Amino acid sequence: MSNSQISSSDGERRFVLTLGCPDRTGIVAALAGFLTGVGGWITEAAYHSDPSTGWFFTRQAVRADSVAMPVEEFRGRFAEVAAMFGPEAEWSVTDSGAEKSVVLLVSKDSHCLTDILSRAERGDFPAQVSAVVGNHRDLEALTTRFGVPFHHVPFPKEGKAEAFAEVQRIVEGYDPNAIVLARFMQILPADLCEAWAGRAINIHHSFLPSFVGARPYHQAFDRGVKLIGATCHYVTADLDAGPIIEQDVSRIDHGYSAADMVSQGRDIETLVLARGVRWHLEHRVLVHDRKTVVFQ
Amino acid sequence: MSNSQISSSDGERRFVLTLGCPDRTGIVAALAGFLTGVGGWITEAAYHSDPSTGWFFTRQAVRADSVAMPVEEFRGRFAEVAAMFGPEAEWSVTDSGAEKSVVLLVSKDSHCLTDILSRAERGDFPAQVSAVVGNHRDLEALTTRFGVPFHHVPFPKEGKAEAFAEVQRIVEGYDPNAIVLARFMQILPADLCEAWAGRAINIHHSFLPSFVGARPYHQAFDRGVKLIGATCHYVTADLDAGPIIEQDVSRIDHGYSAADMVSQGRDIETLVLARGVRWHLEHRVLVHDRKTVVFQ
Amino acid sequence: MSNSQISSSDGERRFVLTLGCPDRTGIVAALAGFLTGVGGWITEAAYHSDPSTGWFFTRQAVRADSVAMPVEEFRGRFAEVAAMFGPEAEWSVTDSGAEKSVVLLVSKDSHCLTDILSRAERGDFPAQVSAVVGNHRDLEALTTRFGVPFHHVPFPKEGKAEAFAEVQRIVEGYDPNAIVLARFMQILPADLCEAWAGRAINIHHSFLPSFVGARPYHQAFDRGVKLIGATCHYVTADLDAGPIIEQDVSRIDHGYSAADMVSQGRDIETLVLARGVRWHLEHRVLVHDRKTVVFQ
Amino acid sequence: MSNSQISSSDGERRFVLTLGCPDRTGIVAALAGFLTGVGGWITEAAYHSDPSTGWFFTRQAVRADSVAMPVEEFRGRFAEVAAMFGPEAEWSVTDSGAEKSVVLLVSKDSHCLTDILSRAERGDFPAQVSAVVGNHRDLEALTTRFGVPFHHVPFPKEGKAEAFAEVQRIVEGYDPNAIVLARFMQILPADLCEAWAGRAINIHHSFLPSFVGARPYHQAFDRGVKLIGATCHYVTADLDAGPIIEQDVSRIDHGYSAADMVSQGRDIETLVLARGVRWHLEHRVLVHDRKTVVFQ
Repeated sequence: MSNSQISSSDGERRFVLTLGCPDRTGIVAALAGFLTGVGGWITEAAYHSDPSTGWFFTRQAVRADSVAMPVEEFRGRFAEVAAMFGPEAEWSVTDSGAEKSVVLLVSKDSHCLTDILSRAERGDFPAQVSAVVGNHRDLEALTTRFGVPFHHVPFPKEGKAEAFAEVQRIVEGYDPNAIVLARFMQILPADLCEAWAGRAINIHHSFLPSFVGARPYHQAFDRGVKLIGATCHYVTADLDAGPIIEQDVSRIDHGYSAADMVSQGRDIETLVLARGVRWHLEHRVLVHDRKTVVFQ
Repeated sequence: MSNSQISSSDGERRFVLTLGCPDRTGIVAALAGFLTGVGGWITEAAYHSDPSTGWFFTRQAVRADSVAMPVEEFRGRFAEVAAMFGPEAEWSVTDSGAEKSVVLLVSKDSHCLTDILSRAERGDFPAQVSAVVGNHRDLEALTTRFGVPFHHVPFPKEGKAEAFAEVQRIVEGYDPNAIVLARFMQILPADLCEAWAGRAINIHHSFLPSFVGARPYHQAFDRGVKLIGATCHYVTADLDAGPIIEQDVSRIDHGYSAADMVSQGRDIETLVLARGVRWHLEHRVLVHDRKTVVFQ
Repeated sequence: MSNSQISSSDGERRFVLTLGCPDRTGIVAALAGFLTGVGGWITEAAYHSDPSTGWFFTRQAVRADSVAMPVEEFRGRFAEVAAMFGPEAEWSVTDSGAEKSVVLLVSKDSHCLTDILSRAERGDFPAQVSAVVGNHRDLEALTTRFGVPFHHVPFPKEGKAEAFAEVQRIVEGYDPNAIVLARFMQILPADLCEAWAGRAINIHHSFLPSFVGARPYHQAFDRGVKLIGATCHYVTADLDAGPIIEQDVSRIDHGYSAADMVSQGRDIETLVLARGVRWHLEHRVLVHDRKTVVFQ
Repeated sequence: MSNSQISSSDGERRFVLTLGCPDRTGIVAALAGFLTGVGGWITEAAYHSDPSTGWFFTRQAVRADSVAMPVEEFRGRFAEVAAMFGPEAEWSVTDSGAEKSVVLLVSKDSHCLTDILSRAERGDFPAQVSAVVGNHRDLEALTTRFGVPFHHVPFPKEGKAEAFAEVQRIVEGYDPNAIVLARFMQILPADLCEAWAGRAINIHHSFLPSFVGARPYHQAFDRGVKLIGATCHYVTADLDAGPIIEQDVSRIDHGYSAADMVSQGRDIETLVLARGVRWHLEHRVLVHDRKTVVFQ
């Protein structure tokens, strides 16, 4: 888990570079040569070479003050290096000092929303919460108390397409780094999954792939499992089947009703979502096919 | 963990009986006979027989509607039974439908405070938060946003005794079921520990007995441990040595600075304190000598 | 978890009583009255009242030396009490001092086998291993080194029915308290599931209901989960769907190949199976419908 | 945890390079340049930059078949590069295909011993067990059953120095990569700690720094903790204060006697020791001052 906290806690600006490309010898040396050439003081460097796909992944962070240029120039110069890694290569260069933003989609459950609003307020989250969109008004007062705008978009049974269009319009007005479905109870249509690919993050209240779909705690109760779980994943058109970012579990026993699981599950949902979104915002999550590489 | 959730989630009123006394045969039968005699429908029953001390402990809950009498009468009739268990016996009878209250003592760290305020607000906590007392004003706005009164009591270096007297006066005005030190950075004087014995609950940010006292995360960093922890315990005059209610840990590695531990530790402190206070309020914690029996 | 260790570690004989029956008032009192009447010194007592099925479950242990009669008489006298609880009631009375026995079914993987043989040898297991049956000879030397007989029953593709008949004949010759499928790679036929209902225990190398069937670690690798797990359950004719006794998980990340998961998974499989079989042998597991009550 | 399993499970030979030195820019580039220059196909690369000490640490593995030279030559060429990193730099180059060996020191408890012997036997451990030394004969039969020599060295109260001299003579005859104190109940004298610095590994049956010294479970029982733990650490002359490699914990409750903790603790001791020794043998553990960097 090592380096994840360094950048967030010491508050120093970093340029963060991520790269995924077909593996071959010399990539690490090319990257290191480039970073040394620009005087980069590396504070984090993580690598993963995946034999099953033949791909190579890396994430590196350098102190911004060690590189005597703005991030745009750094990005431009890296583009020249990246060209060596082939047309399939996917890379990014970001400035940890740049403002980041998230928009949350919610329904009636407050636990994930409150947690993220509180983390952001106390300076313990790598983004500001720009807005909250709810299909009910239940969480409006809670949201505005934090000084965050709340948008109510009703979801009538006949009229979901229009509602989603409205949600999309609102969300995209904020141009957020992540759209977080914080116990939002509506299934995103395929076109929205497409439009927000790699940015829309959901928390599912089971240890996927167990208990896909509705009422997972009731499914868990019926099966008699001894642990309940939560899964943070990117949203795709395939329900609850997107790339998994983070999962965790919590012990229960025969004495738990489904309602008890709902209650206890809130804590694990809250933590798993907060971790997953944080890692996404810190560019620690690289997606390849249906899976993620997470450089914690 | 079984039965803890039943009473909280189904919302039905229970009469809860706890007993600790020197062990001997016949106690269980005497209790069961009493409960049957009053028509009690038992929903939870937990027992512990401790060979090291020779004591017996139990906690039982019956549906209030199965016992055709008010809690005062139930308590009175149980008193006659309890007399059999000797003069050392400690017991209580409470009505889960009675309003419970907590007062929180805080300083500048908001995570535990926000968590408990949020749980109480969403109806997921067995008490209301009657008031918050802070030795700084940092958390005043956060508190009052939840509609909870905030009392600021400054703690000047010369004048702590007066400050504690003021805190005591405020706290006792609310007659709370628990006084929760939610990252309160002042050490309670011995007389206050005595006055609040069995009601004052602290969260210490280490896995006690490791790292007693100040700056436990810095101590943990210096020692190079691979897990950090938190401990919820009753406050006694012996610093960080009171009976432990709950503990948990979180994995770190060599990449964590002390500041990173402080950041990550907030999540585990929050959960451990919330659990410990909940169990206390639900009369699941029986103290004997320096240890607890926790009937989850 | 409290009382599970008491009986195993202090070595004293107990009479253990389990009961499951439709819930109604007075059961606890009837039991307590009976136990008091025979002078029983209760060392463990656990209860569960299940609102979803309307059933009541209990397990109680009394010191054998406190009850001045042999277990057969104790059982006979309890049968009269149990008659009150209706024709559906299921109950048992056992003597913890009676010898218990298990038979293990294995294939080529040694980790679960070695672990149980070692626990039994060092006196840290509530049964002796009477025999091991393998469909290959790979684990014969390991088994006989512990002084335990090994039976080789080949499973030719055409001839599984005969092989299972032979396994059944061997196993039933030992009249074991549990038949443990310790990474046995053959699927029991329905009639054997029926014959061994409530005694045949399997370890499945996934967190069920995820990844039923063959090669669960490869399924886990393909899905990109962040935790792998193991499940100990009673064998039923419905593959990997029997009542779950115990589950646990272990963290992995993107760097784990399926082979790495196989390797790391061994530790969690070993622990989960050992716990599940122990609890079964100590009469801590009560089965009702497709689920278990586990009184740890 | 990612890459630790790759090398062990795919069975391919690697050259493994570790380095610790004062941090400055250009180290990563120098390493990458060197590895590229020799044609090294990097399969694992982990870095840690420690702001508190100003040191830099790395561990890298390359496929041996990608480097057209024997390990001695590779080591020699790296020595020239390493010279750039200053006189304090500590580094190693090893061949994962080279045979590794451990010697175990034991007393009467068999759980850690059996576990390591079993892992080694089934090919799931990165070393062979060359010998076992015991201060009692209790574990002799168990050891020799695995075909491993057992040396009995009695430790009379008057004569420990001679006994330790004998142990040292035996151990050093095997020139092991690790000397593992697998619940060895004798305290190593300072000169032996010195002679075996960085190679002698102990398992302590508590979550250090809690409960240093004798009978930690009894200390834990007296304090009433809610989790028990185990710590794997390098042995130094300062009792139970050496650099920590790995720790883990296990939940208990008020029902556990000290003897129950001893019993349950065996599982966590076994796992923590096995992990710690494995990481040591795979050159994943770099020691600096009193702490470790562990590149899992």
